[in-house]
Amino acid sequence: MLQSHYSSELLEKAVNEINRLPGIGSKTALRLALHLLRQDEERVEALAESLVEMRKGVHYCKVCYNICDEEKCEICSNPTRDSSLVCVVENVQDVMAIENTMQYRGLYHVLGGVISPMDGIGPSDLQIESLVERVKKGGVEEVILALSPTMEGDTTNYFIYRKLEETGVKVTVIARGIAQNDELQYTDEVTLGRALAGRIPFGK
Amino acid sequence: MLQSHYSSELLEKAVNEINRLPGIGSKTALRLALHLLRQDEERVEALAESLVEMRKGVHYCKVCYNICDEEKCEICSNPTRDSSLVCVVENVQDVMAIENTMQYRGLYHVLGGVISPMDGIGPSDLQIESLVERVKKGGVEEVILALSPTMEGDTTNYFIYRKLEETGVKVTVIARGIAQNDELQYTDEVTLGRALAGRIPFGK
Repeated sequence: MLQSHYSSELLEKAVNEINRLPGIGSKTALRLALHLLRQDEERVEALAESLVEMRKGVHYCKVCYNICDEEKCEICSNPTRDSSLVCVVENVQDVMAIENTMQYRGLYHVLGGVISPMDGIGPSDLQIESLVERVKKGGVEEVILALSPTMEGDTTNYFIYRKLEETGVKVTVIARGIAQNDELQYTDEVTLGRALAGRIPFGK
Repeated sequence: MLQSHYSSELLEKAVNEINRLPGIGSKTALRLALHLLRQDEERVEALAESLVEMRKGVHYCKVCYNICDEEKCEICSNPTRDSSLVCVVENVQDVMAIENTMQYRGLYHVLGGVISPMDGIGPSDLQIESLVERVKKGGVEEVILALSPTMEGDTTNYFIYRKLEETGVKVTVIARGIAQNDELQYTDEVTLGRALAGRIPFGK
């Protein structure tokens, strides 16, 4: 473990700031700081500015709570997308992952997390109420739950399902089964059990 | 691999800037950017400022070329350090590592790298000439070579040794042998051979 034998206070301050980032230890922080010291001043300024401008300029879409630069995100503003379909995801990365499949033409609703009493995250910390309001406004025919298949994801799925029951909207959940190229013998029991229970007619 | 389905250009720009840092891939860059988005604006500004201020404010000590905030570093300015001893190291991290041992009270000379023709680094890219000048000025009785025991380190050691020969200064190299708590049977032949050749009287 490196102790605080920094020969420069400016270097030490920068290292400490970088060290605050998640998953960046003190040695990596020092390595990154020394790398930046070797770069042109303009490059360091470009990095610094991009961070501040992002933090100041980024909005959350008022419809789906995805990250965007305007009031409404590109997906919600796109008239060719199917606005009767709303896919509920945990975060921005999940939107990107689904967009990358090129298989989905509906809209999203970004919860901002999942219900997790252990981490002190309750339903009111998430965009669940806004989802219910959105469905009540009309136009939504199907809500697709696409949360991670964890205990927290399942809890959140069930909570949303109960909240949406009164609206009468169709609620579906993405298929759970064995992943492409996985070997059956190494698949865990829960996944295999669900894959069996969720079997569909062949050729469909 | 994530494709460029960023819903925000500001986010994408910041991710690309972070992604330029060594050892930070695009997924980590996205994770860090989204982390910063969740922080207070002041925190992001503090990080950005610390980077720019470090890049603008950091000097290289005019004596030993260590990183510092003034013209001369704290170690070179410290009158209680032994100025007759100069320890030659590759970089700033090595200075920190030696300082952490609390075993050394002399001064340093930071080369800024080692001779590496493969990477296009020749003697003139390093602070070797300034070391020779420093020794010629007088007051230095021993130069301790503390470079990594690699082919490049050995080449650089030998180059410096030849350059310093005319000055008559005593040149030593840090001991190479088996590391504390290493097991003899798993030690490589070169290290073990050197440890044998470099044996010292027991109890010394």
